[in-house]
Amino acid sequence: MLMGELASILDTQLSASGHSALSDRLFETRRLSIELAAPLSAEDMVVQAMEDASPTKWHLAHTTWFFETFVLTPCLSGYPLFDEAFNYCFNSYYEHQGPRQPRPKRGLLTRPSLDRVLAYRQHVDLALAQLLAEHTNAPPAFIHTLEVGIHHEQQHQELMLTDILSLFAANPLRPTYRPAQPRSVPALSEPPRWIDFAGGVYQIGHEGKDFAWDNEEPRHDALLRPFRLADRLVTNREWLEFVADGGYEAATLWLSDGWAVIGRENWHAPLYWESRDGEWFEMSLEGLQPLSLDAPVAHVSYYEADAFARWSGKRLPTEFEWEVAAAEAPKQGNFLGTAALRPMPATAEPDGSPRQMFGDVWEWTQSAYLPYPGYRAPEGALGEYNGKFMVGQHVLRGGSCVTPQDHIRPSYRNFFYPHQRWQFLGLRLASEVA
Amino acid sequence: MLMGELASILDTQLSASGHSALSDRLFETRRLSIELAAPLSAEDMVVQAMEDASPTKWHLAHTTWFFETFVLTPCLSGYPLFDEAFNYCFNSYYEHQGPRQPRPKRGLLTRPSLDRVLAYRQHVDLALAQLLAEHTNAPPAFIHTLEVGIHHEQQHQELMLTDILSLFAANPLRPTYRPAQPRSVPALSEPPRWIDFAGGVYQIGHEGKDFAWDNEEPRHDALLRPFRLADRLVTNREWLEFVADGGYEAATLWLSDGWAVIGRENWHAPLYWESRDGEWFEMSLEGLQPLSLDAPVAHVSYYEADAFARWSGKRLPTEFEWEVAAAEAPKQGNFLGTAALRPMPATAEPDGSPRQMFGDVWEWTQSAYLPYPGYRAPEGALGEYNGKFMVGQHVLRGGSCVTPQDHIRPSYRNFFYPHQRWQFLGLRLASEVA
Amino acid sequence: MLMGELASILDTQLSASGHSALSDRLFETRRLSIELAAPLSAEDMVVQAMEDASPTKWHLAHTTWFFETFVLTPCLSGYPLFDEAFNYCFNSYYEHQGPRQPRPKRGLLTRPSLDRVLAYRQHVDLALAQLLAEHTNAPPAFIHTLEVGIHHEQQHQELMLTDILSLFAANPLRPTYRPAQPRSVPALSEPPRWIDFAGGVYQIGHEGKDFAWDNEEPRHDALLRPFRLADRLVTNREWLEFVADGGYEAATLWLSDGWAVIGRENWHAPLYWESRDGEWFEMSLEGLQPLSLDAPVAHVSYYEADAFARWSGKRLPTEFEWEVAAAEAPKQGNFLGTAALRPMPATAEPDGSPRQMFGDVWEWTQSAYLPYPGYRAPEGALGEYNGKFMVGQHVLRGGSCVTPQDHIRPSYRNFFYPHQRWQFLGLRLASEVA
Amino acid sequence: MLMGELASILDTQLSASGHSALSDRLFETRRLSIELAAPLSAEDMVVQAMEDASPTKWHLAHTTWFFETFVLTPCLSGYPLFDEAFNYCFNSYYEHQGPRQPRPKRGLLTRPSLDRVLAYRQHVDLALAQLLAEHTNAPPAFIHTLEVGIHHEQQHQELMLTDILSLFAANPLRPTYRPAQPRSVPALSEPPRWIDFAGGVYQIGHEGKDFAWDNEEPRHDALLRPFRLADRLVTNREWLEFVADGGYEAATLWLSDGWAVIGRENWHAPLYWESRDGEWFEMSLEGLQPLSLDAPVAHVSYYEADAFARWSGKRLPTEFEWEVAAAEAPKQGNFLGTAALRPMPATAEPDGSPRQMFGDVWEWTQSAYLPYPGYRAPEGALGEYNGKFMVGQHVLRGGSCVTPQDHIRPSYRNFFYPHQRWQFLGLRLASEVA
Repeated sequence: MLMGELASILDTQLSASGHSALSDRLFETRRLSIELAAPLSAEDMVVQAMEDASPTKWHLAHTTWFFETFVLTPCLSGYPLFDEAFNYCFNSYYEHQGPRQPRPKRGLLTRPSLDRVLAYRQHVDLALAQLLAEHTNAPPAFIHTLEVGIHHEQQHQELMLTDILSLFAANPLRPTYRPAQPRSVPALSEPPRWIDFAGGVYQIGHEGKDFAWDNEEPRHDALLRPFRLADRLVTNREWLEFVADGGYEAATLWLSDGWAVIGRENWHAPLYWESRDGEWFEMSLEGLQPLSLDAPVAHVSYYEADAFARWSGKRLPTEFEWEVAAAEAPKQGNFLGTAALRPMPATAEPDGSPRQMFGDVWEWTQSAYLPYPGYRAPEGALGEYNGKFMVGQHVLRGGSCVTPQDHIRPSYRNFFYPHQRWQFLGLRLASEVA
Repeated sequence: MLMGELASILDTQLSASGHSALSDRLFETRRLSIELAAPLSAEDMVVQAMEDASPTKWHLAHTTWFFETFVLTPCLSGYPLFDEAFNYCFNSYYEHQGPRQPRPKRGLLTRPSLDRVLAYRQHVDLALAQLLAEHTNAPPAFIHTLEVGIHHEQQHQELMLTDILSLFAANPLRPTYRPAQPRSVPALSEPPRWIDFAGGVYQIGHEGKDFAWDNEEPRHDALLRPFRLADRLVTNREWLEFVADGGYEAATLWLSDGWAVIGRENWHAPLYWESRDGEWFEMSLEGLQPLSLDAPVAHVSYYEADAFARWSGKRLPTEFEWEVAAAEAPKQGNFLGTAALRPMPATAEPDGSPRQMFGDVWEWTQSAYLPYPGYRAPEGALGEYNGKFMVGQHVLRGGSCVTPQDHIRPSYRNFFYPHQRWQFLGLRLASEVA
Repeated sequence: MLMGELASILDTQLSASGHSALSDRLFETRRLSIELAAPLSAEDMVVQAMEDASPTKWHLAHTTWFFETFVLTPCLSGYPLFDEAFNYCFNSYYEHQGPRQPRPKRGLLTRPSLDRVLAYRQHVDLALAQLLAEHTNAPPAFIHTLEVGIHHEQQHQELMLTDILSLFAANPLRPTYRPAQPRSVPALSEPPRWIDFAGGVYQIGHEGKDFAWDNEEPRHDALLRPFRLADRLVTNREWLEFVADGGYEAATLWLSDGWAVIGRENWHAPLYWESRDGEWFEMSLEGLQPLSLDAPVAHVSYYEADAFARWSGKRLPTEFEWEVAAAEAPKQGNFLGTAALRPMPATAEPDGSPRQMFGDVWEWTQSAYLPYPGYRAPEGALGEYNGKFMVGQHVLRGGSCVTPQDHIRPSYRNFFYPHQRWQFLGLRLASEVA
Repeated sequence: MLMGELASILDTQLSASGHSALSDRLFETRRLSIELAAPLSAEDMVVQAMEDASPTKWHLAHTTWFFETFVLTPCLSGYPLFDEAFNYCFNSYYEHQGPRQPRPKRGLLTRPSLDRVLAYRQHVDLALAQLLAEHTNAPPAFIHTLEVGIHHEQQHQELMLTDILSLFAANPLRPTYRPAQPRSVPALSEPPRWIDFAGGVYQIGHEGKDFAWDNEEPRHDALLRPFRLADRLVTNREWLEFVADGGYEAATLWLSDGWAVIGRENWHAPLYWESRDGEWFEMSLEGLQPLSLDAPVAHVSYYEADAFARWSGKRLPTEFEWEVAAAEAPKQGNFLGTAALRPMPATAEPDGSPRQMFGDVWEWTQSAYLPYPGYRAPEGALGEYNGKFMVGQHVLRGGSCVTPQDHIRPSYRNFFYPHQRWQFLGLRLASEVA
């Protein structure tokens, strides 16, 4: 397999590098993508199960194209494109970069082959190492774009896993991405505790020199009323009560658009739930498993999250409320590095601070994904990264069990359409202060 | 025609009423609906041109059903339903009221006939008059619901006109709702002036005892940064420049969803513009007319408004910015009562205060249609009126040339999906303060 | 109402005509269309319930346009078009005649009004009378086209009734086209008798000088094997057995395309059957009526007819077999003139000749609608009448309870797509000779 | 690669077999499928480009499932199913065999892996060898089903190549299935010659003990009129004239359904034609190649073939006419064994007998795909093989450049929907005798 060779080559190259921290992160990120793909066959990597998902091979190539296009071509003099046709194949949505393979047809790209895509990665990695080696003294001009490339690849690492899950869930054999791990079964039947937050003017958005996406800026004041937040995520056990209480059949619990969607799509439970002989299972990266009752519910749409909250007599938090609460919480959690690859029950010992703010599942907020006051998209192609999606979507916060830990921040804004649910999407309840 | 008879009956009844102000408004509103329908044939009134629009006859019946269902049935003892089948025919979207004629099939209701719907109106009007006559002394318990019914009917008056326009625009004969009026042609080639507003905490939302929709409440503080607003609406002349500059062909000006929509729908101009022999016309309630260059552009989607703003180097205002500005503006404008039935050029003499804040066209804002902090939908069927639509739409402000003047308020929130444009929808530019 | 006036005008005009037989038929046909529309309101006449159906008003105008376009314009010198825009509005599918109102949008034509369409009919009728008056001696050159126009209008008379039925069936009030007539309930529980026909070479297709469509020609030899035909149509009672036996759930009874359609459309019975409290009703021109068990089943698709035949261990006849049998049967039956307006049970006294060969319901045959050997479509626009539809459809024979009697012939070929069922479509079984 | 091992195993097994001819054909057929797949990667084999096409891997597995299900399970006592889940995965459309992976989702089956499917083939091949070895003396009862399995696999061999072509044509790299072979360029500018056939009664359909599909029977008499057939196929050169003459823009040349399809799909040329810088190319199994002018046109729909014939003043032959002509023609041609893998120009030396009757391209006939007189589908699952598709399709005759030669017969009836064109489909003109 190419991965071994590739790694040794990179090790050699990188020893020459002076930007050890940056280059370490760069090549560790690059290597992690390969590791995540390792359990998959070439066949698994070429197919997409639905329009929203992309093939693993495409993710591997697209993230590479990103570095080639935005870092190497403008910044490494004499850099030879690996293959001119790849701009068409692996451009995702950058109108500045010209036409491209239509998204629903990414799964038709049996060529270029996986081998060739791996060679592409090697070609680009070597050139990146060369670029870094040429700039050992001064902070290079391309450093921001390189950072963007790293964070961009981290986003696709999450997508690789969720897209593979969608593929395996559509397979009648219900394959596993990895063998099932033994699962301890903690009992977490206690209701969540509620934490009160004071109203007032808060600073919202990213601050400082660390990396952040443009959509987290500018940092600005936001005026909040007092609010109350559950100290943990909603669980499968609680969702089962909602199902058993006829939640999916009670029109008046639902947003009008949501009611139309669940009727048209015939939804009666979260995406990967399956009922077999009266027992609930859920499809996971470890295959079809008994539903873990105390784990956070995942793979629910905004419509479902909103209906659940209404049924509960509560509401979803705004993204600002979430960010205020997150500022006080430890940035730890069940991330990709934990290797659980699924949401896990909250610790049974609450200490008054909010649990599960990071990791496990992205948390739907009632905030539409809109620009912050004073937001301006960057110039050029990278200006398309976030800004052009600011309509019709909702903000999610906190990262999931397949998010790389160093990818996430309290100010991080993820966004999906209200009907989407193939990501690890869940919810935490909020309410007014009585 | 029934209208004459109906009016005389009502006049008689109402003289007995003690709630003169309320009953006057009620029956004037009821009569206005009939007047608006008067230029139409029974054929015109039965058809819907598209799923978003409803037939005139359906509007006449549905607004009547609303009073019958929410006022008469609960409040007038012994009230006999006019026809039990009408609940199915004329319920719009109230899940509490049971199943109903699907929206896209409202245009199939050739029965009940127009005559029967007019008789239905008469039946309900007489019962309303009786109800009011029975409560001449104390303020009745139903007064709020009656107010809701009046404002509800006013909304449908606007829809009647926009839906008729959509029907006539789809007719190869391009019929007129009324004969064309002579149009003076003022020259308004000057650019808009810009008005600065200070940042700070503002009170937003409805206050006081006057009628307002639930979605305008609760009144709450909002923190705004300094902003700048154009003192008039964007004109057709300016939109022509956008078209001529290739605005509809420049992908990078557009939100991603918007670019997909204009490609799929093959949009190259506002909804009712037509190019004939190189000259632009627009379909109106007066038929196909030469484009009025200095009138505000109308019938543009959020996507188009947003792209225009980006092309201009500006942005759309938030709904809060708009409301702050509107608080200082006179609540006058080109409303339904003006009888222009189309957007009119701004006065050529700006005085420093914002022109055209009310009437002419609803103004797209960049604010998603979401609940105000602390919002709770009312109990029961009327709780479905506004709350269940709070996803995926954007707020518009200010009313249009077919809005009844006493229907509108500075705090009034209208909402449409970003692709919709059959209403009189336009825009005003905003920007940061430099 | 215009109909009275119109009739008297025509009476006057026609007395001058020398082609009494032809002009009688012409104007009787024209008058019949008006009579058929008479029970309807203007509202009923403007709407179409689905894409396959057309509004009554459109039928009235289109048949008139047909005479204007193909008879008056070429043959009556100085004939003034009634309205130039009508060619766009009322051309059905003649590419030779230019662009036209899209078929699914015929129901949007609230203008021209019904009054104007009636005036159009009068204008054209008067011109036709003038044309006939100018050619009293010699057989005119236009006589064939005039005949085409008459038969064309007869086809639309049938469509007017079936399209109205589709509209009323889609109305929650289930309106009636006319009041229900008392229905005698004959018992016809006996199975059909079987009639044997010898194999051999038969002459198929139209012969002689009488009118026939181009698709009935050329008359030609066809070689048939011995076959056997049921002496009556399949009844509702028999169809109920098929339903009760799980016919609609048994995949292996169905053509593959048919199985897909009934699954997608959720069909469990003929089009207008409705089950209420365990009893079957059918929507008819007399409104919702208890299912008439001994009447022929109607409103079934080819897929259903074929599945029923397979379930019965029989097959559908070919169109040639049908024609051979029809040649011996009396050309009588339950046609439009009978005024039953619904299929009627067969006479209880079979005499050895096939019953119900004509009228009641069109009979599906297993023959695809294809050109006869040597067929050539006529030159010009009328060449589009039949030839361009010769793919994907099946032939039906014999006419229905809403076909004018003098419209039908043993050689008459009707055709519909295998999924269509809004016409009066039924079946008669056939089989090999043992 | 497994193929080498597999072959040697089979060689050993088969030496023990007494049915040398049958087993030879069986295992040669089985081996040929593997050979056809050999140039493809596992990635190429898992994807389907469109709903009509299937993945190569699926073809390899489905043909194996066919033997397992219809031969081994009923006939080899003690046969162990390779994997119970495969019945769901690889059943194509047999309702008798239960539910199955939906056709449009065959391309999602990344599991079972290619390796496992190859092991499945080996498992089944060994069991087939065992079955044959157990029945060396008497003609076994399963011999017909085994024959069906062989011919079934041959059909899928053709589909493997056409489906791969559809996949590679959808790939922006336009990959090649095999390297381009040098192409001689014969000049064949002469028009076709016309061959006359006498009218009369002909025997149509399969006769004798050799294998044939049920749909080729019963053999029966058909009465034909004198007809005339072109002695060769229509060429790309001739099709170019049709294109240049505006054939795709002339509505009156087209069947109504065809005109709708080419408008909706935006067709302006055969499926795999591409215009680059004013020159025509065609996508082939050898990649994108200059259009071979004298080769037969391929990848045209029935609608296009019919329009071309009308433009030519001719018509398509009936399937009976074709069969009569084919009876006299040598059963030779450009088949899969020729290894051209594309249609080839006719020999330049016509000898009065029809050229290219077999191979090159399937020839559209004007005959709908319907049962022959007296046809009855076989009992059981195999009765679904042909009979349930007898609606809405047209018959094609003669085989193509990717049909195995011993698969074809003069009586062979292929069938496709009139809009389909991804197979090697072309045409030969016919006409009446003057």
